Amino acid sequence: MSTYPPISEQLDDLEAARTEGRRKMDWALQHMPILQELRQQFREEQPLAGATLGMAMHVEAKTANLVELLALGGAEVAITGCNPLSTHDDVSAALDANDDITSYAKRGVDDEAYYAAIEAVVAHEPTITVDDGMDMVYAIHEDYPELIDTIVGGAEETTTGVHRLRAMDEEGELKYPVFAVNDTPMKRLFDNVHGTGESSLATIAMTTNLSFAGKNVVVAGYGYCGQGVAKKAAGQNANVIVTEVEPRRALEAHMEGYDVMPMNEAAEVGDVFITTTGNRDVITREDFQAMKDGVLLANAGHFDIEIDLDGLSDLAVDEYEARDGVRAYEMDDGRRLNVIAEGRLVNLAAPVALGHPAEVMDQSFGIQAVCVRELLENGAEYDAGVHDVPDALDREVAEIKLDAEGVEIDSLTDTQAEYMDSWSHGT
Amino acid sequence: MSTYPPISEQLDDLEAARTEGRRKMDWALQHMPILQELRQQFREEQPLAGATLGMAMHVEAKTANLVELLALGGAEVAITGCNPLSTHDDVSAALDANDDITSYAKRGVDDEAYYAAIEAVVAHEPTITVDDGMDMVYAIHEDYPELIDTIVGGAEETTTGVHRLRAMDEEGELKYPVFAVNDTPMKRLFDNVHGTGESSLATIAMTTNLSFAGKNVVVAGYGYCGQGVAKKAAGQNANVIVTEVEPRRALEAHMEGYDVMPMNEAAEVGDVFITTTGNRDVITREDFQAMKDGVLLANAGHFDIEIDLDGLSDLAVDEYEARDGVRAYEMDDGRRLNVIAEGRLVNLAAPVALGHPAEVMDQSFGIQAVCVRELLENGAEYDAGVHDVPDALDREVAEIKLDAEGVEIDSLTDTQAEYMDSWSHGT
Amino acid sequence: MSTYPPISEQLDDLEAARTEGRRKMDWALQHMPILQELRQQFREEQPLAGATLGMAMHVEAKTANLVELLALGGAEVAITGCNPLSTHDDVSAALDANDDITSYAKRGVDDEAYYAAIEAVVAHEPTITVDDGMDMVYAIHEDYPELIDTIVGGAEETTTGVHRLRAMDEEGELKYPVFAVNDTPMKRLFDNVHGTGESSLATIAMTTNLSFAGKNVVVAGYGYCGQGVAKKAAGQNANVIVTEVEPRRALEAHMEGYDVMPMNEAAEVGDVFITTTGNRDVITREDFQAMKDGVLLANAGHFDIEIDLDGLSDLAVDEYEARDGVRAYEMDDGRRLNVIAEGRLVNLAAPVALGHPAEVMDQSFGIQAVCVRELLENGAEYDAGVHDVPDALDREVAEIKLDAEGVEIDSLTDTQAEYMDSWSHGT
Amino acid sequence: MSTYPPISEQLDDLEAARTEGRRKMDWALQHMPILQELRQQFREEQPLAGATLGMAMHVEAKTANLVELLALGGAEVAITGCNPLSTHDDVSAALDANDDITSYAKRGVDDEAYYAAIEAVVAHEPTITVDDGMDMVYAIHEDYPELIDTIVGGAEETTTGVHRLRAMDEEGELKYPVFAVNDTPMKRLFDNVHGTGESSLATIAMTTNLSFAGKNVVVAGYGYCGQGVAKKAAGQNANVIVTEVEPRRALEAHMEGYDVMPMNEAAEVGDVFITTTGNRDVITREDFQAMKDGVLLANAGHFDIEIDLDGLSDLAVDEYEARDGVRAYEMDDGRRLNVIAEGRLVNLAAPVALGHPAEVMDQSFGIQAVCVRELLENGAEYDAGVHDVPDALDREVAEIKLDAEGVEIDSLTDTQAEYMDSWSHGT
Repeated sequence: MSTYPPISEQLDDLEAARTEGRRKMDWALQHMPILQELRQQFREEQPLAGATLGMAMHVEAKTANLVELLALGGAEVAITGCNPLSTHDDVSAALDANDDITSYAKRGVDDEAYYAAIEAVVAHEPTITVDDGMDMVYAIHEDYPELIDTIVGGAEETTTGVHRLRAMDEEGELKYPVFAVNDTPMKRLFDNVHGTGESSLATIAMTTNLSFAGKNVVVAGYGYCGQGVAKKAAGQNANVIVTEVEPRRALEAHMEGYDVMPMNEAAEVGDVFITTTGNRDVITREDFQAMKDGVLLANAGHFDIEIDLDGLSDLAVDEYEARDGVRAYEMDDGRRLNVIAEGRLVNLAAPVALGHPAEVMDQSFGIQAVCVRELLENGAEYDAGVHDVPDALDREVAEIKLDAEGVEIDSLTDTQAEYMDSWSHGT
Repeated sequence: MSTYPPISEQLDDLEAARTEGRRKMDWALQHMPILQELRQQFREEQPLAGATLGMAMHVEAKTANLVELLALGGAEVAITGCNPLSTHDDVSAALDANDDITSYAKRGVDDEAYYAAIEAVVAHEPTITVDDGMDMVYAIHEDYPELIDTIVGGAEETTTGVHRLRAMDEEGELKYPVFAVNDTPMKRLFDNVHGTGESSLATIAMTTNLSFAGKNVVVAGYGYCGQGVAKKAAGQNANVIVTEVEPRRALEAHMEGYDVMPMNEAAEVGDVFITTTGNRDVITREDFQAMKDGVLLANAGHFDIEIDLDGLSDLAVDEYEARDGVRAYEMDDGRRLNVIAEGRLVNLAAPVALGHPAEVMDQSFGIQAVCVRELLENGAEYDAGVHDVPDALDREVAEIKLDAEGVEIDSLTDTQAEYMDSWSHGT
Repeated sequence: MSTYPPISEQLDDLEAARTEGRRKMDWALQHMPILQELRQQFREEQPLAGATLGMAMHVEAKTANLVELLALGGAEVAITGCNPLSTHDDVSAALDANDDITSYAKRGVDDEAYYAAIEAVVAHEPTITVDDGMDMVYAIHEDYPELIDTIVGGAEETTTGVHRLRAMDEEGELKYPVFAVNDTPMKRLFDNVHGTGESSLATIAMTTNLSFAGKNVVVAGYGYCGQGVAKKAAGQNANVIVTEVEPRRALEAHMEGYDVMPMNEAAEVGDVFITTTGNRDVITREDFQAMKDGVLLANAGHFDIEIDLDGLSDLAVDEYEARDGVRAYEMDDGRRLNVIAEGRLVNLAAPVALGHPAEVMDQSFGIQAVCVRELLENGAEYDAGVHDVPDALDREVAEIKLDAEGVEIDSLTDTQAEYMDSWSHGT
Repeated sequence: MSTYPPISEQLDDLEAARTEGRRKMDWALQHMPILQELRQQFREEQPLAGATLGMAMHVEAKTANLVELLALGGAEVAITGCNPLSTHDDVSAALDANDDITSYAKRGVDDEAYYAAIEAVVAHEPTITVDDGMDMVYAIHEDYPELIDTIVGGAEETTTGVHRLRAMDEEGELKYPVFAVNDTPMKRLFDNVHGTGESSLATIAMTTNLSFAGKNVVVAGYGYCGQGVAKKAAGQNANVIVTEVEPRRALEAHMEGYDVMPMNEAAEVGDVFITTTGNRDVITREDFQAMKDGVLLANAGHFDIEIDLDGLSDLAVDEYEARDGVRAYEMDDGRRLNVIAEGRLVNLAAPVALGHPAEVMDQSFGIQAVCVRELLENGAEYDAGVHDVPDALDREVAEIKLDAEGVEIDSLTDTQAEYMDSWSHGT
């Protein structure tokens, strides 16, 4: 049994932390209408009764409302962070105050503590895993395969996590069903496009006191996150430049009106560089050498390897904190390249970062919640492997959201439904 | 054997028509870089040698360049129109002048002639069908099932056609493989979004001499076509209102910043109504009764049943041509509702209409061409039914287009490719 | 007395022309709510009784509704065209059928007839001039100075006209007051930005069957017209490039997110070039030599000298009509440069052109009408020279428009009005 | 002589403050290319030698670079804050370390200290005033009229300040020349539109962790600031609603595609309300009573009276800090209305606020600097009263900026310049 202590045993002024954590959670919940509606349903129907959830997610106010919702639905929950810098200790403490929740997440822990916390969650012997980067799935498959038999399934939040799970699945190494929450239309369009786009740019603006109007903003990658960053940057009057490796995405960006070019050309003209690829070494030494004085470098993908920081550090003759959350690398010719939030996920890891907006996470977390419910109700129907979220669940959450926003829509008449199904109507 | 004559036997001043048709084709080809590139390849490699193609498409300058490309690639082609109002007789004549092409398409034919022309194409005993609305597939399955055995496959261009083919497929009624060209990323994003969006609005503007700035533009349906119309209308400073029946699409439109409401509410405030649903009775009597004086009604979906014109005619106390391409329906309270292009596909059927822009069709037709090539090279690998266009073909066309536009992109390094495939890298 | 005959004496089938002209006018009036409202006021109040108006404007359906409004208000009107290619003979005939209106405008007249028609208007001894390019003001000052004494004043519609009137005024050569209708906020923002922008692009699209998505659209000049063209082109997903000579306008375009560069650099990358400067030789030989095959060249400024067509013709080894409204100039290396509408104002002179949208002209013409009223009511208060339109008139027209669109706004409370006037309130 | 002490005598850890203040200034200067260029010029030419400047501005890193530039140019500078909450003590301390600068600005001072600091600045007997809200002008005219004789002139940064100065001027009460820096094209378009727009929205996003996509954002006032907020909010996919009292601005917003309605209607549907009017009582009790639960209220105008906070407080049954920088007012029916930054200028007064972006202020401050230079060089040419910034100065700054951004533009040829001046060219 793990001896790693929950957050409540690690903080000095626990009561103050819990009060502040609860205040943050309340604010977020006020702007999460889907979770509000599901709280009522889950409290009444107890759909998760008997389940034990093992979670590794960014422990902050919005996620905390998902965690609490799952507990309200009848589950026992153990949770830790999925990124050493994204945990809010006060929110972690507020969660841990709930009898049905144990939170091990603590900000700024070292590698050893990070993995000890994951181990502590696993020690609860979860029957369902909920991940934001597949840490929990990975730990169980690698180190605790004996748990797999009793696990009903899992849900994964991120692009990167799903990508890696699919690779694992293709190799036949994924041993229980996992819902690819990231791949739902709702998640990809709203969370990735609107959430990542808006929050990354606002975080960069508020970390640097700079603006985007008239700037050359280079967006590396034109997947959903990249599309969001590009769209929102253009909406701030930036001149957007896209780099890509996939010709169809490149063409899509070109047809949208953006400049498309290889990174080593973009490096010469860019003022701000934002990586969103989920890959590594997207901006490299050669690129750094071409850049202008004063450029900003930030990552809105997943891990801190999109920008080759080691290479940058090698090239630099001096490094210093130019500003909270901004590290300047000075080249031998005097140029200063400014890396935001250590190249980690900028909307989570910058000092002022708040993560995705509450309303956007509301949608993702609504899907997470109904996916967990689905695993308990119909888990046996799903084979080991990555599964798309069933359309009906995705649609259920969209309907809750539209209701909450007061948006009414049409419905098909019988004649129309019949027409859509037919194929024998002539011109 | 059909006795329906090709266009060359139906026109008076054939030479003049052929010259004018060729001039139109030349203009379009100048702006179709993908077809230009494929002409070189097909001429050299003769990938379609021995095939007989039966086509039913809008016979105008752009399509004609596809037809000629297919003939250049070695095929015998027989073609007719897929809409009585979309054929350009001069282009049809220019095609028919090619020894390897027989064109039966003629503008404004009645129903009898329309179906006789389809029959005439079928009489060529095509081994491959290329459709824009599944007319050819339908005729063969319904009336000439004996041809099915020798048919290698088909390709279908439109949203509506694919929708109906899938319904047919689900009922087990589709007897040969058909590529759903409409469903490729290239086709949906570029043709539906950019092509339908831009050309529908420009056609409406140039039919009415009206503008979109400050207008309430109601877009019925938020599929790819609807997204395009909405996006381009907003780009002309319209206030966009979306109606939908699918909650996730409705939510997507809402998150984009558009107003979303049921049609009967939109009817009260809309200045311009554009249907894009592919369904019927999208705007009905109840809606007409709520509309303001002077509204415009147009269809950018497929058939002329999206707007209930019979119902509108019943309600009207007077009807007259308010302007070329605009029929005014006057209500008993004096309100005038103006229907553009008889409710047919506005960017094809209006008097000034030119169809989709050349560059956009270049992409769709590039895919059509490589799909036909694929059927001949690997047709045996495809079962009867609807097939997605193989990724490699779609990507091939995107690469040709980027090359032609002078757009360079990055490629994955080995390290990056390996990283994307791996799943065991930690945080 | 001039012997140049009015249009009614120049047409063969006068009745058919008048019927068609009236149908065009009715359509436009349906979408000109400001003129509708002013018709009621002018008919009742007869504010223009006794005035004789000499007009030189584009004689088409929208202008015709202004002309008829002025006649309804009590004036005698004589009118001719201000551009040999912009007159609609049928509309001219419909106007001329009105007892209070004499129209000399005829499409396609030669220079001699053009100036004879102006002379014919002058022969009516106008007391007020209304111009679209200062032809009437110029003719009177140059050739009929004896009329100046009895002229109350004038109104000028265009950017170019006002520019030249101001130059004339600075030299002390302008001998009666002229309202710079072009310079009102209403005119510049709505007519120049929305009107020129939307109609120029739609005309180009419908003349060429091309699209703007992904194209490099070079806009020469970033005044109001240029801003409109740039904004609407970006709204169609073009990649906009701006050329300018004024650093503040250039900076404004840069901050908007557009690329800004000299024309000779833009020439190398542009796909479509649209001039809006009101100046000459904006695109020259050197630029033509750098351009890509297939580019489009159009003018949305005023005269046909923005693009150096003589220079282009010199460079060309062949010239031909590539398409109605498109003249191709073939260079010795095979490149084809395509000039739309002979370099004349594209939204007026192209074969499919309809001029500015009706709603946009409604606003400009509303101001014209109240300016003419103002000259009759208070003309004596204005010295010779160019005058801004009084704010109250501009605001009156805006209020009529908002009313017509059903848009309500707030009004200042007494406390607020007082606050805005005060200066002694502390922090 | 004033006895109010400079900031250096008010801080405990002065050295640490100065180091931190300098670090902030360095970061800003790195992104202020115009000030960088002017530093070189001013250092060499000493254009301000002999002048004493009295300034009341937001004392933070960007302004500090202007202050230091002015001192570099040869002036003695005394400065205090123009808003009790906008001063950064560390920056103030860094400035005060300069022998030629005395800074009295301190954050969070009470009214008494605030005015004592102004008095202390006045005691330096400034010969030029530089204001951000006319505090300095007002203090001198009201309390130290004896100084007026030796004052060369002033410069005013803000919309509100200029508005009040004009009112003062109209009453004949302004006794020395003041440049309306706010009214330059550069300032209004870039600072008001881009600066206020981007920074206000980013500040709200990062204060609330909310997003704008799909939200109804109500913008009160459609002047330059309002246009900026509306444009940037639409660029984040908000559904923008504008309220106005001036019909032409209202019509402009309507033609842009925004919804325009009275505030009491907007109150019912808005999710976020942002005031930009410069007036008072823009959102009142009646509006609060109509609002939805969870709305956000912020001010991007000038003073904290645009939202009637007293009225809101009266209506509330409870008030509490919902989040840092957010005060919740709970209504008796449970609705929570959330006011950001106490209704003060949100991009300056919120806890995370950083003021306008550095690049945007670079432009405004560049103009301030050359205006001060102009007053010393040619001050005698300006009468008492409000003066527009001479075009040549505005243009000079634009040219410096374009140079710094590497943007080249065209220049008029002699033929073109001559053409623009002529008026006798025919059609």
